[in-house]
Parts: sequence; structure tokens; C-alpha cells
Amino acid sequence: MNSLVSSKDLRRHTIEMLLQNAQDFMDKDQVRTSTGTVANLFFENSTRTDLSFQMAAQRLGLRTLHFDVSHSSTSKGESLLDTLETLEALGVDVVVIRHSIDWPKALEGYKLNMGLVNAGSGAFEHPTQALLDALTMRQHFGSLRNRKVTIAGDIRHSRVARSNLHILTELGAHVQFAGPDSFRPSDLPEVPWVDLDEAIEETDVLMMLRIQHERHVESTDVSTYHEQYGLTEQRLRRLRSDALIMHPGPVNRGVEICTAAMEDPRSQILKQVKNGVEMRMAILDWCLQGGKYGKLVSA
Amino acid sequence: MNSLVSSKDLRRHTIEMLLQNAQDFMDKDQVRTSTGTVANLFFENSTRTDLSFQMAAQRLGLRTLHFDVSHSSTSKGESLLDTLETLEALGVDVVVIRHSIDWPKALEGYKLNMGLVNAGSGAFEHPTQALLDALTMRQHFGSLRNRKVTIAGDIRHSRVARSNLHILTELGAHVQFAGPDSFRPSDLPEVPWVDLDEAIEETDVLMMLRIQHERHVESTDVSTYHEQYGLTEQRLRRLRSDALIMHPGPVNRGVEICTAAMEDPRSQILKQVKNGVEMRMAILDWCLQGGKYGKLVSA
Amino acid sequence: MNSLVSSKDLRRHTIEMLLQNAQDFMDKDQVRTSTGTVANLFFENSTRTDLSFQMAAQRLGLRTLHFDVSHSSTSKGESLLDTLETLEALGVDVVVIRHSIDWPKALEGYKLNMGLVNAGSGAFEHPTQALLDALTMRQHFGSLRNRKVTIAGDIRHSRVARSNLHILTELGAHVQFAGPDSFRPSDLPEVPWVDLDEAIEETDVLMMLRIQHERHVESTDVSTYHEQYGLTEQRLRRLRSDALIMHPGPVNRGVEICTAAMEDPRSQILKQVKNGVEMRMAILDWCLQGGKYGKLVSA
Repeated sequence: MNSLVSSKDLRRHTIEMLLQNAQDFMDKDQVRTSTGTVANLFFENSTRTDLSFQMAAQRLGLRTLHFDVSHSSTSKGESLLDTLETLEALGVDVVVIRHSIDWPKALEGYKLNMGLVNAGSGAFEHPTQALLDALTMRQHFGSLRNRKVTIAGDIRHSRVARSNLHILTELGAHVQFAGPDSFRPSDLPEVPWVDLDEAIEETDVLMMLRIQHERHVESTDVSTYHEQYGLTEQRLRRLRSDALIMHPGPVNRGVEICTAAMEDPRSQILKQVKNGVEMRMAILDWCLQGGKYGKLVSA
Repeated sequence: MNSLVSSKDLRRHTIEMLLQNAQDFMDKDQVRTSTGTVANLFFENSTRTDLSFQMAAQRLGLRTLHFDVSHSSTSKGESLLDTLETLEALGVDVVVIRHSIDWPKALEGYKLNMGLVNAGSGAFEHPTQALLDALTMRQHFGSLRNRKVTIAGDIRHSRVARSNLHILTELGAHVQFAGPDSFRPSDLPEVPWVDLDEAIEETDVLMMLRIQHERHVESTDVSTYHEQYGLTEQRLRRLRSDALIMHPGPVNRGVEICTAAMEDPRSQILKQVKNGVEMRMAILDWCLQGGKYGKLVSA
Repeated sequence: MNSLVSSKDLRRHTIEMLLQNAQDFMDKDQVRTSTGTVANLFFENSTRTDLSFQMAAQRLGLRTLHFDVSHSSTSKGESLLDTLETLEALGVDVVVIRHSIDWPKALEGYKLNMGLVNAGSGAFEHPTQALLDALTMRQHFGSLRNRKVTIAGDIRHSRVARSNLHILTELGAHVQFAGPDSFRPSDLPEVPWVDLDEAIEETDVLMMLRIQHERHVESTDVSTYHEQYGLTEQRLRRLRSDALIMHPGPVNRGVEICTAAMEDPRSQILKQVKNGVEMRMAILDWCLQGGKYGKLVSA
């Protein structure tokens, strides 16, 4: 059973294989005759990621267990391990985990006979989001080599930014960050930190990140943020005609992005959601591989 | 894809078609070989309606997504639209929505490529409940033409009353309302407002509505309400022998209805629940129609 | 339709039949071609029991309804009955119930045309846990006749202890209890109450029970409890080499049991979880029996 816990584990040929498999699920309308059980273990709220994995598992013909951990006190590494060992004993094959802590680190050194998929770990990693983002860019540009990707917003607290940095760099793109200086991450000094207004015309992909109201409401005035750091209508006009506008969702309209940008033909926001399903199908399928699972058949 | 959002959209021939399809699911033990995905999006608590749609979708062979929106802050029209666009991008075919607001109005002018089913919108509409009520009456009376239906209780806040009014009137029945004057709806002056004690002997169907404890506890003494406006044992004796007792549930025993009435042979309360499954099967099936879905086969 | 509500209802031949059927599901990799719908109705939190029944139902090919009753006010016998009658009307075949009250007693005298399975009733019964415990012992010892089983901990509040007492005694084992005197149950004076340190070397099975932090935190100091009544490393060394260590989970490491004991080769804790799935398959299957359901086929 394979696991996908960190974008840093993925080399280019594995990424390309996963992207191509996702594209095949989409293009060839392939269906799976698989068996296996997937459990979503989400210790943080989620709508689209949770549903996306549910949909992917169901389209693969897998069983899904419903696990309600909202408001659970299972928040330390040790008890997470006990929970996972219980799921393994129940016969679960793949667990999709979202947690506010760096859970892969908390589990280091322990051995589980299941596939683990990282659907979000603190501010550290969200590799399946980065893969679906790469899939979306690849559909448009073909190769990502030498493409300039600007990720703008609260980079410091963003697992999406960190996972995208690794995946996109591995695919040959040039990633740079933008945003308020207080959001600049101290752990990534090698990544160019640019002024959005100076960078926007040379950008192939502009990825806006959600501002966490609950986190920053005291330090940031919303409309000031939008004017200074958001994708305003003015900046939208300066963006290249073949550039892509991306956002991992959910969006704060009028904060990090204006409504006109969401509805712009260059916006990929709903395309990202759509691509997420086939991307997760390819990921779950890869985790389950090893001979005892079904093979691809044409629908 | 069809949608069912308001009882006012339904003309007699569509209602009759839906009722007959539900009856066929029941009588002929028909099963579906369908594909499609249904998501229940319930912003208000529900037991029987949620489970009824889950059961209907599963009996049709459809995929169901589990969406936990209790305690969600997604309560404004705009963010509801974002949620629905996300579900559409995920590949959901039909969304069943319950919300405390008039959500169809909030969505007016927006276009979605999915079927929408109204499982309750504020105090405005609950058309699938009205259809299953009509199905229950139709099984007993054949035609509803000129049948007298008395709906009694908190009409002012009742979406059930409003949807039943439209569906039953379209089918030729005469609907009248009863209850405390403070519960008389100001928006429906054309509907007869009767005294329950005067109307009870001429009534073919007596539909009692739930008194919302949480709403009225300060203004209404429970046992006084029962004596003055509830279906008491005394009123039960005056009800015609071929009349039907109905209630959309959940019931407050001893408030709007006495236990003896619930257990009376004329009571249809559990029959309504039972009919709800096949009624929702017919509704979901109708929403999914358009050629690409499965066809009816005998079990 | 059969029901399984109390361990006291089960005679030896029924227990043996259920255990053998569970073993067959495991050994022969049998699959079911069944139809039917199971609803889990859990008024108390649960992870492993809820998921275990979900997994069992899905492996039997049954439909499952998701019913969210956490924080529900449905806590009295009468409204529980209304809920069950609603589930019956919806077409549910088996309801798996966990409740803080003695719900089988609350339902006495009422008739339902469904199978009911007790997944926990107050401090009274948890018969499916006792059956999976018996299955685990049987795999190791063959017969339980004259085996000595020591159940240690908060016996007074333990439904697991009570159900195990009945099932294991019926199978010929000798059950004894140990723990702080304040945890000795007044309703079971006939069961030997032993000192763990005196009993440990003659014990074939040592079953440790979870200490409910939320219940006893004021009266018990955790490390004192561990030293006096827990399975410490010192006691672990005195346990026989062919004895079994059991725990119904979830475990409080360092309170009732030390980590070394959990990882000891004699520990059956994860085996119990694993056995739970096939045990519940056999139980659900037995409840559904009656001619109209599918028959066993080899996988």
C-alpha cells in the first residue's frame, strides 16, 4: 500500500504518472472495479476536500466509512496512532487525514499497514491540493517548465503554498510569493518575495490564498487588505490574457479576490474543484495498488 | 435535469405523473439501474426527511454524499450559491436542500446545471411533504376532487400548510385552515378559516401540525392548547369513520394530538413516512431524467 | 427478524452458532448477497463500535443509513419508540442502538417489526462486545470450559463486565471481578471479588476496563490507581505465558494498563477490534434471517 503524506517525497516521474492517471480518468471515462475501504479522518472542518475524497472513493467503487471527529479530543500524536491502529484492525485500507498538527511527524517511527493520504497537516502540507493545482495548470500550458507562478496572501500559515512550492518546482516552474511582509514565511528564504504590482504582468499563474478571518481580523482591515494585496479589478486588467487565476477555496469575495476575477474566463476556481475528484481518484488508486486490487477497464 | 422547488410550479398533470410513478415503485417493486449522485444539504435539523431521501437515493442505486452542515455559518444566499457551484463542480447531479431562509428566492437569477429539490424553505415551501401527503390521500380516496381537507395548528409558520394548499387545490380538493387566531396567516386571506369543532364532522382529512415548543412556549400553555385546538379524544369521536388523520411529524403527543388519535385506525402518520420513500424516489428519478440515466426494470 | 438486546437471552447453542458463523466469515472469506438496510442509532459517542457495525453492514452488502443523533434531545423511552417506528416505516430492517438508558426496558411491551441490536445500554449490557470477546478467547483456547477470566476495573459502571459475565459463564468459564472496593457492583454479590495481585497468576484471561476520566477524576489519582489496580509492568511479568490480555478500548495508557502490556504478544486488544467486524456480520446476518434474505456464497 502506498502513502502520500508530503509533497517533498514526490519526484517528477511519480508526479507525472499521478497527473496522467488523473487525466485518463477524465478523458477516457474509465471506471474501476476495485475493492477496498477508505475512511476520511478530518479533525478540521472541510467541505470540498472531504466531499471530493468521498466522491473519488465512490467513483472507484470503494467502501467509505463515515467518521465524525468534529469536536473530538483526539488531538495528540499518541491517541491518533491508537485511532489509526483501530482503523487498520477494522480492515480500512486507506485513511485520508486532515489535522491541525504536523501529523506525519507525530507518526514518525510507527508502522501501519495502511495507505495514508495527507488532506492537510497544520500549516505544513496539503499535497493533494498541490497535485490538482498542477493538473489544472498542465491542462492549460502542457508543460510547466519555466512557467512563473505567483502565490499571494498569507504564505506564512499556508500549507497550500508549501506543497505547491515543492510540486511545481519539481515540475520545472518558478514559484514566487507575494503578500504583506508579516505573512512572509521565515522558513523559506530562498523563495523570491515580490511586489504583486511589479510581478503581475509577467505572471503565468496567479494563485490567491484565503485570508483566515478568524486569524487576522484584529490586525487587518478587510478593504485595506483588498486594495493593497488582493486581486482587485485594477490588477485583473493588468494580468496577461493567457494567465490563469487560481484559488484553493473557499473564497472570501472582496477580500483576497474580487467577484469580477472569480467570474473572469481566466479563473480556474471551479475547474480546480472539478479536477480534484479525478486527481483524488488517481491518488487513492495509487495507494491501493499492489496486485490485489482491480484493474482499469473502459466504461 | 429537472428541479422541484415550489409547489406553485406544479400543474395537475405533473403532480399526477409523480404520484403514479411513486405508486408504481411501491406496487410493482420496481428497481432502478441508475447512475448519479445526490447530496443532502440540510441547514436545519431533520430526521425523517433526511433519512427518507437517503433511503430513496439508495433504493434508486444512486451515490450519496454526506454533507455535515449543522452549525455551519453558510447561511446567506451568496455563500449558498458558492457551495452549490462547488457541488456542481464535484459532479453532484441533484442537491436536496433544507434551509431556514427562502433559498429558492435567494438563488433567483443564478444558473446551475443540477437538479434542486426543496426539502424545506423557511415557512414557505415543503413540496415533497405535500406530494407524499397527496399520495397518502389518493391511496384512500382515489380522486381528491371535492374532498375537504382541514389543516389545523400553527399555519402562519408552516411550510407544510402552504405547500399542501397548492398541491391539494390543484388536485381539486377544498383546503381550509383552523387554529388560534394568532396563527392565522395574513398572506392567505382567501383560504377559509374555520372553527375546528364546527368543521370536524364534515372533514375528509384532518391534518394536525406540530406546535413548535421552542417558538411558542411562552405564549401558549400546553394543556390549554390541546383542549382548545388539538385533536382530543372528544374530537376524535366526532371525526367521520372514513376520514383520515394526518401529521407530518415529529409529533408532540398530548399537545396538538392525543395518543389515542395516533393509534386510531384512521391515523396515516406512519403511512405518510412509508409513502415518503417512494414519493422521493419518484421525485429524484424525475429530476435525473433526460436520457442518460437508467430505465425502469422489474425487480 | 431476530433481535439481540441482552446477553441473558442467549443460551449456549445460540452463542456457539453465532461464534461459528463469525469464524466462518473470517476463515472462508464468505461474502453475502443480501438486501436490507441497517441504521446505527447512537445516542452516546462511539468510534470503534459505530465503525465496526458500518463495516460489517457494508461487507454484507447491506444499505446503511447515516443518522446523526449526537446532541439530540431524543432521550426518553417514548420518543425513542416514535423514532424507531419512523425507522420501521422508512423500511429499515435492523437498528443498532446505543443509549445511556436501559433502552430495552424502556421499550418493553412495544412491538416493532425490525431487528434491534444492543450496542450499549447504560451500565447494563453490551452483548456484541461480549460475543467478540468470547470469539477472541475461543480462537486461543478452543473451549472456554473452566477457564478463569478476571475482569478488573470499574465493574460497577461497566456494561462490558455485565454482558461478559453472562456470555462467558454460559460457555463454562469462571468469571471473577477485581478493582477498588468502591467499584464493586452491589447487584452481583455472587461473583467472586478478588485481589488482582493474588489472582493474577491463576488467570487465563485478564480483561482490563477503561477508567472513565470524566467520572472519577475527582476521586482517584491516576498514578495511584495504576499502581494499585492497573496492569503494571510488574503485574505483567507475573501473568502466565499463555494468558490473554484484553481491553474493550479505548485505552487510557498508563491508567488501567501500561504501554508494555498493550504491545505484549499476549495482548489481544487489536485482535478484539478485528474480530468485532466478523462478529457483527454474524449478528446482523442472524437478525436478518427468515427466508427473504440472501444465502451464503463462497467468495
